[in-house]
Amino acid sequence: MKTITVAKGDGIGPEIMDATLKILKAANAQIKIEEIEVGEKVYLSGNTSGISKDAWQTIRKNKIFLKAPITTPQGGGYKSLNVTMRKSLGLYANIRPCKSLHPFVSTKHKDMDVVIIRENEEDLYGGIEHQQTDEVVQCLKLISRPGCEKIIRYAFEYARLYGRKKVTCFTKDNIMKQTDGLFHRVFDEIAQEYPNIENEHWIIDIGAARLADTPEMFDVIVMPNLYGDVVSDVAAQIAGSVGLAGSSNIGDSCAMFEAIHGSAPMIANQNVANPSGLLQGAILMLNHIGQTEVAEKIQNAWLKTVEEGIHTFDVYKEGISKQKVSTSEFADAVIANL
Amino acid sequence: MKTITVAKGDGIGPEIMDATLKILKAANAQIKIEEIEVGEKVYLSGNTSGISKDAWQTIRKNKIFLKAPITTPQGGGYKSLNVTMRKSLGLYANIRPCKSLHPFVSTKHKDMDVVIIRENEEDLYGGIEHQQTDEVVQCLKLISRPGCEKIIRYAFEYARLYGRKKVTCFTKDNIMKQTDGLFHRVFDEIAQEYPNIENEHWIIDIGAARLADTPEMFDVIVMPNLYGDVVSDVAAQIAGSVGLAGSSNIGDSCAMFEAIHGSAPMIANQNVANPSGLLQGAILMLNHIGQTEVAEKIQNAWLKTVEEGIHTFDVYKEGISKQKVSTSEFADAVIANL
Ligand SMILES: CC(C)[C@H](C(=O)O)[C@@H](O)C(=O)O
Ligand SMILES: CC(C)[C@H](C(=O)O)[C@@H](O)C(=O)O
Repeated sequence: MKTITVAKGDGIGPEIMDATLKILKAANAQIKIEEIEVGEKVYLSGNTSGISKDAWQTIRKNKIFLKAPITTPQGGGYKSLNVTMRKSLGLYANIRPCKSLHPFVSTKHKDMDVVIIRENEEDLYGGIEHQQTDEVVQCLKLISRPGCEKIIRYAFEYARLYGRKKVTCFTKDNIMKQTDGLFHRVFDEIAQEYPNIENEHWIIDIGAARLADTPEMFDVIVMPNLYGDVVSDVAAQIAGSVGLAGSSNIGDSCAMFEAIHGSAPMIANQNVANPSGLLQGAILMLNHIGQTEVAEKIQNAWLKTVEEGIHTFDVYKEGISKQKVSTSEFADAVIANL
Repeated sequence: MKTITVAKGDGIGPEIMDATLKILKAANAQIKIEEIEVGEKVYLSGNTSGISKDAWQTIRKNKIFLKAPITTPQGGGYKSLNVTMRKSLGLYANIRPCKSLHPFVSTKHKDMDVVIIRENEEDLYGGIEHQQTDEVVQCLKLISRPGCEKIIRYAFEYARLYGRKKVTCFTKDNIMKQTDGLFHRVFDEIAQEYPNIENEHWIIDIGAARLADTPEMFDVIVMPNLYGDVVSDVAAQIAGSVGLAGSSNIGDSCAMFEAIHGSAPMIANQNVANPSGLLQGAILMLNHIGQTEVAEKIQNAWLKTVEEGIHTFDVYKEGISKQKVSTSEFADAVIANL
């Protein structure tokens, strides 16, 4: 029995977390849940960090954290808690598998199976911004050699572990010769240690363009933080929907698992949201803690449900889908397929 | 008769420029050409800026500049001449129309007609990078209020002039609250002056994802420099090919017109490159200098050629294309259709 931290988050968070936990329980995942409160309610109670000291302690103690989407209030002073958590916990690697499920989910890209590995602590996400004059503001992009080494080695190790053939690197080092140049240089260095894995580098502009057009060309792609943010949303969406993708945030001691989409307040409390992204996050988590059998069982049941055309509204499409279901109905259908 | 500056550039540059100029001449465009040398040869002759003082003078005198792709040598010390020219000439607006030509050119997006308006001087393109320690490098992202105002007003004026219905703004202001926040704020301000044009803002990650998946949702999109670099390549590629798109770089006194693709040295000197991107740049130029009739004549002849299935190898596709032609054959086919 493994104790994990769970945060139900904001917007559609509670609904999709309940659905996910119900499936995990039905599948008999060997986990015990310790719930914490983070996000909007904490912000609005006057704690501008969105998270209490106790919650930090719980996360650090359990080391494994399943997190629903959270909302950062608009306006001055609030920092993104998502980013704070990634940095404070040293979660340097963000892994986002994007695989199309043709012909069961509508997609223009039938043979897509790409894993985006995104650096998760540095780059423009440092949050260092300042106002120079009344009319000029600046933000600092930070790239460090240790940061590059960690994420790039992670990408090649990932490829080796999962039998992937190629690791591609995206940067804009024709413009940012020092920062992105360092990332590219470290990529070339580490690639040499993996002679059995193909490696290549694309300038991000044309690389992203080819990915959006012909994702079959790519396998594992590693890149700095902000590019990874944009490219992973593009990849997930063209594979089917950002609503179907989960992600892991991996550090040396802790790991956090989540959906890649946001808290979608517009459709909250209507029992219509798709729990698949968070469920995919939970499956990544189960694999990470060694519960691979139950992870596979849930993945197969989920796949069977999706293949049966049992779809929430976001991926529902006439002619492909069979039945439009609610959040809880979708969870029940997955459970029935376990 | 209007005198324009022309640079034939590097790689495939001379071939596609010759093809383009041949078409312009056959169409009886009222232009006189003054040629300058910029790029690789100039770099390698020892001038590390890639451009001579005389060439600058010619560009500034004629004000209108048609430029083929150029190559910046790899390695330390060389700055991108493309970027230097945009900044030195104050070319603050980069306009990239991306329209699919279904069923004549293979695309997964049949009804796409998007114009990307990219800020062209600021952002991470400032080229301000420095090494902090042996292991840490930084790059400065700069956003100014006048810079935002100019490009955003340009986008709305463009929409008004061309009868476009909506202007969308992409930023990452949930993370970069000051820099991207300023861009977004100025967008909201200026949008109010155009009550007849719809306006909306998307976070760049999900915005780019929706664009890659469902480009019909968008019309005119305005954004900071680096996002515009990536998003315009994505848009052009999914519309058909980056090889088909031209762009204008507009300033208060000068304007430069180019293809959006690079100099493709791998396929240089083989008479196989597609001159369409540069030709599209030339058509934008003719419209800009008021030669709208000849611009339309060339555009129609080009469209007819493409619709006849006369394609260079890059867009050639069995079942859609009729005839695979060389660079010069393509130009001749366009001329025959004038
Ligand atoms: C919510 C936001 C801070 C976050 C990011 O930018 O990383 C999100 O877009 C993501 O990709 O997880
Ligand atoms: C060649 C390069 C400097 C340029 C850019 O990054 O702007 C190119 O990618 C473009 O989009 O015109």
